[in-house]
Amino acid sequence: MTRTDPFFHPVSGMELPRFAGLATFMRLPHVGPDHPRLDEVEIGIVGLPFDGAVSNRPGARHGPRALRDASTMLRAQNGATGVRPFDAVACADLGDVGPNPVDVMDTLGRFEAFYAGIAARGIRPLTAGGDHLCTLPVLRGLVKGKPPLGLIHFDSHTDLYPVYFGGKVLTHGNPFRVAVEEGLLDPARMIQIGIRGTTYDNADVDFARANGIRIVRAEELFARGIPDVMAEARDIAGEGETYLSYDIDFVDPSVAPGTGTPEWGGPIAREAIEVLRALRGVNIVAADLVEVSPPFDAAGNTAWLGASLMFELLCLMVEAKVG
Amino acid sequence: MTRTDPFFHPVSGMELPRFAGLATFMRLPHVGPDHPRLDEVEIGIVGLPFDGAVSNRPGARHGPRALRDASTMLRAQNGATGVRPFDAVACADLGDVGPNPVDVMDTLGRFEAFYAGIAARGIRPLTAGGDHLCTLPVLRGLVKGKPPLGLIHFDSHTDLYPVYFGGKVLTHGNPFRVAVEEGLLDPARMIQIGIRGTTYDNADVDFARANGIRIVRAEELFARGIPDVMAEARDIAGEGETYLSYDIDFVDPSVAPGTGTPEWGGPIAREAIEVLRALRGVNIVAADLVEVSPPFDAAGNTAWLGASLMFELLCLMVEAKVG
Amino acid sequence: MTRTDPFFHPVSGMELPRFAGLATFMRLPHVGPDHPRLDEVEIGIVGLPFDGAVSNRPGARHGPRALRDASTMLRAQNGATGVRPFDAVACADLGDVGPNPVDVMDTLGRFEAFYAGIAARGIRPLTAGGDHLCTLPVLRGLVKGKPPLGLIHFDSHTDLYPVYFGGKVLTHGNPFRVAVEEGLLDPARMIQIGIRGTTYDNADVDFARANGIRIVRAEELFARGIPDVMAEARDIAGEGETYLSYDIDFVDPSVAPGTGTPEWGGPIAREAIEVLRALRGVNIVAADLVEVSPPFDAAGNTAWLGASLMFELLCLMVEAKVG
Amino acid sequence: MTRTDPFFHPVSGMELPRFAGLATFMRLPHVGPDHPRLDEVEIGIVGLPFDGAVSNRPGARHGPRALRDASTMLRAQNGATGVRPFDAVACADLGDVGPNPVDVMDTLGRFEAFYAGIAARGIRPLTAGGDHLCTLPVLRGLVKGKPPLGLIHFDSHTDLYPVYFGGKVLTHGNPFRVAVEEGLLDPARMIQIGIRGTTYDNADVDFARANGIRIVRAEELFARGIPDVMAEARDIAGEGETYLSYDIDFVDPSVAPGTGTPEWGGPIAREAIEVLRALRGVNIVAADLVEVSPPFDAAGNTAWLGASLMFELLCLMVEAKVG
Amino acid sequence: MTRTDPFFHPVSGMELPRFAGLATFMRLPHVGPDHPRLDEVEIGIVGLPFDGAVSNRPGARHGPRALRDASTMLRAQNGATGVRPFDAVACADLGDVGPNPVDVMDTLGRFEAFYAGIAARGIRPLTAGGDHLCTLPVLRGLVKGKPPLGLIHFDSHTDLYPVYFGGKVLTHGNPFRVAVEEGLLDPARMIQIGIRGTTYDNADVDFARANGIRIVRAEELFARGIPDVMAEARDIAGEGETYLSYDIDFVDPSVAPGTGTPEWGGPIAREAIEVLRALRGVNIVAADLVEVSPPFDAAGNTAWLGASLMFELLCLMVEAKVG
Amino acid sequence: MTRTDPFFHPVSGMELPRFAGLATFMRLPHVGPDHPRLDEVEIGIVGLPFDGAVSNRPGARHGPRALRDASTMLRAQNGATGVRPFDAVACADLGDVGPNPVDVMDTLGRFEAFYAGIAARGIRPLTAGGDHLCTLPVLRGLVKGKPPLGLIHFDSHTDLYPVYFGGKVLTHGNPFRVAVEEGLLDPARMIQIGIRGTTYDNADVDFARANGIRIVRAEELFARGIPDVMAEARDIAGEGETYLSYDIDFVDPSVAPGTGTPEWGGPIAREAIEVLRALRGVNIVAADLVEVSPPFDAAGNTAWLGASLMFELLCLMVEAKVG
Repeated sequence: MTRTDPFFHPVSGMELPRFAGLATFMRLPHVGPDHPRLDEVEIGIVGLPFDGAVSNRPGARHGPRALRDASTMLRAQNGATGVRPFDAVACADLGDVGPNPVDVMDTLGRFEAFYAGIAARGIRPLTAGGDHLCTLPVLRGLVKGKPPLGLIHFDSHTDLYPVYFGGKVLTHGNPFRVAVEEGLLDPARMIQIGIRGTTYDNADVDFARANGIRIVRAEELFARGIPDVMAEARDIAGEGETYLSYDIDFVDPSVAPGTGTPEWGGPIAREAIEVLRALRGVNIVAADLVEVSPPFDAAGNTAWLGASLMFELLCLMVEAKVG
Repeated sequence: MTRTDPFFHPVSGMELPRFAGLATFMRLPHVGPDHPRLDEVEIGIVGLPFDGAVSNRPGARHGPRALRDASTMLRAQNGATGVRPFDAVACADLGDVGPNPVDVMDTLGRFEAFYAGIAARGIRPLTAGGDHLCTLPVLRGLVKGKPPLGLIHFDSHTDLYPVYFGGKVLTHGNPFRVAVEEGLLDPARMIQIGIRGTTYDNADVDFARANGIRIVRAEELFARGIPDVMAEARDIAGEGETYLSYDIDFVDPSVAPGTGTPEWGGPIAREAIEVLRALRGVNIVAADLVEVSPPFDAAGNTAWLGASLMFELLCLMVEAKVG
Repeated sequence: MTRTDPFFHPVSGMELPRFAGLATFMRLPHVGPDHPRLDEVEIGIVGLPFDGAVSNRPGARHGPRALRDASTMLRAQNGATGVRPFDAVACADLGDVGPNPVDVMDTLGRFEAFYAGIAARGIRPLTAGGDHLCTLPVLRGLVKGKPPLGLIHFDSHTDLYPVYFGGKVLTHGNPFRVAVEEGLLDPARMIQIGIRGTTYDNADVDFARANGIRIVRAEELFARGIPDVMAEARDIAGEGETYLSYDIDFVDPSVAPGTGTPEWGGPIAREAIEVLRALRGVNIVAADLVEVSPPFDAAGNTAWLGASLMFELLCLMVEAKVG
Repeated sequence: MTRTDPFFHPVSGMELPRFAGLATFMRLPHVGPDHPRLDEVEIGIVGLPFDGAVSNRPGARHGPRALRDASTMLRAQNGATGVRPFDAVACADLGDVGPNPVDVMDTLGRFEAFYAGIAARGIRPLTAGGDHLCTLPVLRGLVKGKPPLGLIHFDSHTDLYPVYFGGKVLTHGNPFRVAVEEGLLDPARMIQIGIRGTTYDNADVDFARANGIRIVRAEELFARGIPDVMAEARDIAGEGETYLSYDIDFVDPSVAPGTGTPEWGGPIAREAIEVLRALRGVNIVAADLVEVSPPFDAAGNTAWLGASLMFELLCLMVEAKVG
Repeated sequence: MTRTDPFFHPVSGMELPRFAGLATFMRLPHVGPDHPRLDEVEIGIVGLPFDGAVSNRPGARHGPRALRDASTMLRAQNGATGVRPFDAVACADLGDVGPNPVDVMDTLGRFEAFYAGIAARGIRPLTAGGDHLCTLPVLRGLVKGKPPLGLIHFDSHTDLYPVYFGGKVLTHGNPFRVAVEEGLLDPARMIQIGIRGTTYDNADVDFARANGIRIVRAEELFARGIPDVMAEARDIAGEGETYLSYDIDFVDPSVAPGTGTPEWGGPIAREAIEVLRALRGVNIVAADLVEVSPPFDAAGNTAWLGASLMFELLCLMVEAKVG
Repeated sequence: MTRTDPFFHPVSGMELPRFAGLATFMRLPHVGPDHPRLDEVEIGIVGLPFDGAVSNRPGARHGPRALRDASTMLRAQNGATGVRPFDAVACADLGDVGPNPVDVMDTLGRFEAFYAGIAARGIRPLTAGGDHLCTLPVLRGLVKGKPPLGLIHFDSHTDLYPVYFGGKVLTHGNPFRVAVEEGLLDPARMIQIGIRGTTYDNADVDFARANGIRIVRAEELFARGIPDVMAEARDIAGEGETYLSYDIDFVDPSVAPGTGTPEWGGPIAREAIEVLRALRGVNIVAADLVEVSPPFDAAGNTAWLGASLMFELLCLMVEAKVG
């Protein structure tokens, strides 16, 4: 029935209730850097507990632990699509990569090195942030020296701004600009969906236009409808290897309040899920879910939604891998 | 104008502001088991403060009190339908039935006995849970020795699973399976709406298929639209006596976070109300609203929505009774 | 063993768990104004849900309901003193007196009339506020045309200020000044304990000095120790009839955050209780617990402490009555 | 590029991060009554910290400060419409008008006088409540002795009721009835949108019918769709001067829980914004956003939505002014 | 310097910040039942996620996970005593024992079997509850067939009551009565400290008196002072093997609100720690910390205090073992 | 009566209720860098909204705004000491200094420059943090090129550690070590009070010993009593110019939960105030209150205590200045 070793299956809720036991991502085994079975992992879930690049409200450094905790409420099968990810692919919780909480550049180096190692072993990563700058070292680690990836990006901000404070290029406002400039992403295969809120200026939109990056504002998303926009997203991504980055602030703050820079007017929960299910068939080789900030998530809803979205991302990655 | 005795009317907010006074359901008189006017009650609201059958997060034992408190914000008339329930039918708060918090079976016996007594007096019950296993003794008390009821069931889970922990059949995961097996419900007149989330396996769906129970997943509900699905629900229920069971986790967690097993992707608040208003004309003889868990409802929204839904349920029961 | 009718006893937690059932004060019977057994009540607990006189943060109108809810956690016997109040005296929850939430003077009239009625029946009241201005109509209802009462007053503010806003004399900052001026309290038998925090000026202290009212600031209370100060309080109160008024902001905000005007540096919980137990033997004929503001009491601790203090007040009133 | 003095621009987030600095509305300069540049202000944002007229849960007195705090997250440009309000019109935070927290009538006089002064200087006000009765003195100050205004009113209640408690006409349940009776509003140019929830009776609807006021219930709003209803609103308002009053309880409680009288079944966040954007071109000369109650808004979402809606209101007022 | 293998040391905060990484108890290695190094563990920390025996508010089933999470804030050395537990003894997180959430008796059997296994391997357990009934199966597993242990017990309740609901003996109100009756504890070497709050009757005190169990009420504890009472505790425990059971409700609810049955008037935080440090030298062979209920601990303080107390318990156990 | 211009007085609560108006520190005038009356300010209150140096939980960047908001509850006179600071000295809110949220070193430079400017004008600063590293640039700005200051330091951590992450010296764990090394503080005139909690090692204590810095652990503070320890502190500080640094985590987490690195066993609220009142007469020329982290302070108690402590600090600075 299942092609994976029982070792790579979640602890069953029948055996140990879901509120019990150590909290690993989806109750999977923890397979750290020195674990003897690391090379057998096909999809690894990784936490990047860092928020040193936020320009507004911090807290996303606490995201991975909250997402792990919430993810223990998940079960084995996607009720809507029938996918059973753990039967199909060897999955594991690879732990967190240690940041330097007081130094952005040092942290980026640590993260990049980890992902380069993962890539070398052929493990596909599903990442839990951390702030959105974390996506940059993931891409550096995975792509450097290889062809650029396509990108499907859900967010209320483009993260294509040039400079924030005091001349520092790298904040959570510009990872995708830098990634394009470094050749890690192919702008012709990039789409950003859900953009909204107030802005300072149009520097991001100008950059997108100049580079051929497609931006779908929230108003357009709802006016055209999710199926139509997601069909366009599938076209843009094409058949090539594609990265999926999901900033939880894509979702409306009434649904996902626990984030640093919420903007009103986003999708409700079922739409937040629907956009992912519409991407079945896209060749998603890696993905992340970022900007969950537990100190602003008193009721824990944002973490529970984030974990549920990570399960959908995992199912997409499994289908992409298994074919 | 009104055919009921003033005794059975809520305390007016003009007389005593809604934040004042003891909290009974909808500010109705408390008519306990020994009250001299008990036999005059036509619809009785009952609390079942028990959560000993939950497999995940507890707290629904505190539901009835929180629902009573929130319900004091309600007024006399349904703004949308114009129904004035307290003018039409003698309603009262019958209090809570005492559970045994450390023994499931003892509790079920107490609850069943209470409902058998209610049924014998001809009082139609509107129940506030408690976890979903509470529905089972309600059905036992009302139906044993009588023809089975139809069921319209709103939930994110089917509650048709066979066994959870250590061989114990009775948890909040299987009341409807047991009720079918005991002949309390007519599976041909059963519909379950809003099912979603991850699952362990398909044992529930298999049981439904084998018994002819109709399951409408959340995805189908939104794809077809509420009016269409509810028309089907009215057809399935037909003209016979029907029970309506409403698990608050039918509603999306962004709207109703205060519950033990929330699942993302459910209806927003106006849809949660709309499904009920679409059932006018169905012969609803009893109903419940379950799984409100106040410890997970810090802002009190879930209780306030639950109380508002109970008012809609009451209006349906009043229309069914008055015809 | 017990000289009271079982009717006047709390619902037992053995019969109905404490989280179950309607919330009345201490699970006592609700004996409203029209109840046939009202005249048998010896001590009546009354709620005054009004906060229209606060100059700062509102919310105390929600106090009575929150105190009722929390009080259901209480049991039958004072563990420290062995007093069993419900065995000794017929106690009941008399409900709330309806305020006019948008008119201070109208409200004061309603409250005074209620207490005059209570006094005429010989029922001794234990009141749950509401803001501190509520004490004024209680005193008016109980004392008008009779000799003034002594007062033992726990608070972080003297509430002896002349005028707050726009020439209105009556706010929660001056009930005791007015009560002295109206001859309801005997200033020679008044003591105020726990005063602290910043002030605008010394108008209150000047009034106290001019009238012979004893003020014990928090610093003095802790420097001398509670036993010594409370001995002085017993001396000041003497053997005459005494009113006890307990503003929850007497307690430190770390213990009782849910109040409108918290001031740091007050007693911790066991000291907040100790001051009351030191008053055994004082002839306390009526008492109140005011300024619990549930919207600022997210965790419910303030209400639970308030209810526990009300139980201590009740025990004092019972001992004073039974002798 | 911009026709306004830099003095009237918000502090830039590049210079001082948005979490830093004093909280004024939208980080605008505070221009109090004695400020030398007051006469240059074209649109003034004003706080009315008063909730003495609420019949249910208080707290809206804390609204202006919470709205100021949240509004510091806003930036300079409306992402959807491209409007840059601060480039086009001189805006300032005019501070709060001091209420008398224990006297409704005194407060109304203070507020009216302030707005009469504003009107005399030609400053158009955008007001942050406070409870909904605050709209009455705003209208009195602006309109007395002038032709009545049209009204577009978003709310879950009509606020057209005659009398609440003890014969007092003025509560937050009737400002619009009184404003019509005083000739401040033209009923033929009035529309109320989003009405829902339970009611006591039909006194409000009868008054509306008798005076030709258009009421669009929430059910109608969603059945017809927002574009259609808002087209009707534009027709009703016509080309004359129009006031826009936005009660935050228009929005569903799942989105905006922090208010005194929430009613289920309202718009989600993007609809709450969409109704405003549909009013571009209407001659809106003044507006308010009322009933945000921070004590019931633990997560701060209601204030953040309220501030975002105020930005939309400001953009409408700017477009109406600039033409 | 340290006699333990680095494997048994916590992850360093220098390497991985304390907010990062999987949450195990004190960042120790997770050594599950099948782990190859299980036999090397000298002190094992165990979670018992069960609250099925509570008579009041549930939630302690979530205790172990919250305690693990909070415990990651701990470091390597006791600042007050200088003890470095991980240098002296091989410690590990043994995981949680799976309960049956809907069956008390089944759960007790599972827990007892686990502890019997631990005892057989010579591992000394430090347990994180769960409700207080959990202590009973721990004692059964450790002591059955061996001489009874002494007991030092911190609590606000004696847990010596006979029967709670419906004839069921086993609730969180009677583990110590049963343990005495089963010969697991030596009543002559038992002391219970901190007892307070209201009670139903004196059945517990009578049992204690009849069996020679020493009860120190909270009032006595503070009147005599902690050093004097703890000297008595050391005398009572003597030199024999002693169990230490710490119910978090021993601590005042202002400090530890997150528990099911809080009682006012307990120790503040530094006293809660001081009582443990006064027990250095007692032969503590096993200990537990129970009744932390995260759903009632919104701010997380109770879990953080509980984890800090577990560190103190661990230091006592280490000193007892190393001598 | 008062020697200061009314301009430098707080807005009166009689005029504008304390919940109304813009939130400046203690309702003082905002006197920014370009304000014409800046040179008249004698004591300036400054916010440093930065937390980029924390090794654990962030959020202190939101401290200044929360402290401003809470401080509006303060009045004009110290109830305990009778000091009326605003009558004696010209005080103002100088606003926040803009940090670079993603760069520690850049931020330190900005802060230092601001304080050098303040010092040059003869304004004495009372600072609201921000994390504890903020104290370092304050000292640099005030002291560089001048004789070192004495230090009275309340904290649960010594902040004398050498290096935290990746070789970066500057974190919130070492400002005082660096300040000593840079000659900004005179170690012979330094005392650190309240130290407690777990530690990694003794590097801080060794540094203190080597340099003659006095450390008073929390256990010693309570064993000797506050008066005795504070007498020693006065001796150590002597008559020279002294800086007072107050980390809110000096206070017990039950009182002040809203901070990044809480440690159990600290002073309760009245002790937290008492230590300051015992310092009357010390020549305190500047002071700070740091590490208030609003995201971990849901109830706002920590900010309200912090603001109250700032008022005590202000009174000390006023008495030191006026003599």
